[in-house]
Amino acid sequence: MDKPVIGLMLGDATGIGPEISARLLASGAAGEVANIVVIGDRRVLELGMRDARVKIGYRVYPSVDSIRWPAEQLPVLDLGNVDPARFKRGESSAESGRLTGETLKFMIDLALAAKLDGICFAPLNKGALHAGGWHYHDEHQMFAALTGHDGFFGEMNVIREFSTFRVTSHVALREAVNMITPERIENAIRLADETLRASGHTRPRIGVAALNPHSGENGLFGDEEIRIIRPTVDRMRAAGVNCTGPISSDAIFIKARGGEFDGVVMMYHDQGQIATKLLGFNKGVTVTAGLKTVFTTPAHGTAYDIVGQGKADRSAMEHAFTLAAKMATSRLAAPTR
Amino acid sequence: MDKPVIGLMLGDATGIGPEISARLLASGAAGEVANIVVIGDRRVLELGMRDARVKIGYRVYPSVDSIRWPAEQLPVLDLGNVDPARFKRGESSAESGRLTGETLKFMIDLALAAKLDGICFAPLNKGALHAGGWHYHDEHQMFAALTGHDGFFGEMNVIREFSTFRVTSHVALREAVNMITPERIENAIRLADETLRASGHTRPRIGVAALNPHSGENGLFGDEEIRIIRPTVDRMRAAGVNCTGPISSDAIFIKARGGEFDGVVMMYHDQGQIATKLLGFNKGVTVTAGLKTVFTTPAHGTAYDIVGQGKADRSAMEHAFTLAAKMATSRLAAPTR
Repeated sequence: MDKPVIGLMLGDATGIGPEISARLLASGAAGEVANIVVIGDRRVLELGMRDARVKIGYRVYPSVDSIRWPAEQLPVLDLGNVDPARFKRGESSAESGRLTGETLKFMIDLALAAKLDGICFAPLNKGALHAGGWHYHDEHQMFAALTGHDGFFGEMNVIREFSTFRVTSHVALREAVNMITPERIENAIRLADETLRASGHTRPRIGVAALNPHSGENGLFGDEEIRIIRPTVDRMRAAGVNCTGPISSDAIFIKARGGEFDGVVMMYHDQGQIATKLLGFNKGVTVTAGLKTVFTTPAHGTAYDIVGQGKADRSAMEHAFTLAAKMATSRLAAPTR
Repeated sequence: MDKPVIGLMLGDATGIGPEISARLLASGAAGEVANIVVIGDRRVLELGMRDARVKIGYRVYPSVDSIRWPAEQLPVLDLGNVDPARFKRGESSAESGRLTGETLKFMIDLALAAKLDGICFAPLNKGALHAGGWHYHDEHQMFAALTGHDGFFGEMNVIREFSTFRVTSHVALREAVNMITPERIENAIRLADETLRASGHTRPRIGVAALNPHSGENGLFGDEEIRIIRPTVDRMRAAGVNCTGPISSDAIFIKARGGEFDGVVMMYHDQGQIATKLLGFNKGVTVTAGLKTVFTTPAHGTAYDIVGQGKADRSAMEHAFTLAAKMATSRLAAPTR
């Protein structure tokens, strides 16, 4: 089977993205699982090589179509749009954010034209992206809008032990409680099941979190478990999804860490974020799940405090790239796509 | 200074309480920090010694007043109320729960009469206690009622790295959101400050959690941080309490684990429980904070799956006893008590 073509985006040039991208490319790990094309400005790639103290032979192509795979030297589409000399390193810049969004949009258009099978991007600066005119609430909403997606989608957080999926996300806790509906829970469980299958789990084991303390203690502290969550989980299991729940917040992550679940569906943002951050989220990966294009990125940020010091760790970037390749491979193999 | 007199209660006799109590007593660690009196049934103590494969010399006294400190042999008040032969081990029993409550009540009356400076108890079975006629929501409410307490009090969870305190606890999440008031937050911060001082922290560093994701993102996802939490924290800090916040749920426990805080004030039950359970809560200690009597217990339960197998670990029990001794010593030293 052919390797998928994965577009690698170097991240916001003011951060550590170029450095960890260069480290990943120099390691050879990415080339084993995908045909890589770096899309962005060659000057940013060269900055990354200097930061990482590595040398990578690359060749600039005018288009993805003009690349012959396997490529002997790393293919680069040079957009010529980001001159890193214009930006102070380790500092947020609206103009850099604007250009970051421009590069992403260029890549998304390539993916929509079936020239890329997936997109892996190094850390962005969300504030800069917003200040630069990309007025989306987060990059997931930006990707959904730019790919013309109108169904359910969501952020998936991947750590070594398990992945999380969200019924609600960036809303007030008061509002999140009101958004716990059978439909949203079903959507999140389905998204978990499909995305984990695409990530290589044949029959994903999905744990569904409770909303209330002690899972509501049989209705004593809230009845969403009885009225909404349990019936939905039961219905989905009857429909063939390997899901279990509701399980108390303070038990489900212990179980998942112990290997009991591949995915955890959480009811509200902090439920999963408290757990995954404690378990090493910064080495994890964030996926925009549910879109027709695969998007992955390291869970950590631009790390402005260590930019240019040659000490940024590439492991999350490598994990993000490998996962993009795996998900894209799975989609290429699926007969329905 | 005299050592405090700490009453040691062996826990529900159907669980591992007798075993870990015997292990603790045999180790000598408890006697270094307190004058110990075991209160309960000597047959349960002997059961614990058999389980733990230890031999402890003890002497039965008719009352606390009749003990001369330092005692050469371990003093025991034998209530003669619990014949362990009547109960199946490793199984919940309403009658055992009833008797557990009876022993606790006896000890609380001794504490109210100033015969005990603190109470450390091995694991109870909450369901059995309730089924046995002690109709309190949890043991903290039972202790508050039996000590005639009418102010604010709460559960404190102590792990190696930090302790947590709760603004709300066993209520539906929907209700918890409505209970986030300046008064409750102030009470919880004060309780944290006072209890941590009594636990040996001279000027406790207290982190106060946010309620909403990303701490509300400047009001975008909820305004409780702006309207309620921050003004309360600021006011308390101005009044001399070393508190900081609000801090996002997914950051505060990373900071606390890293040593930045002695205590974390959490807005709702699972916020802290997700974190402390992942960080080794089962080796931790639960304290009923804010009452005139010191109460501590291991955070773990009766562990019915390993009862009588001689493999129960005493470390949480030892931690609970040491903390009771420390808190009682601090109260004895306080001029106002």
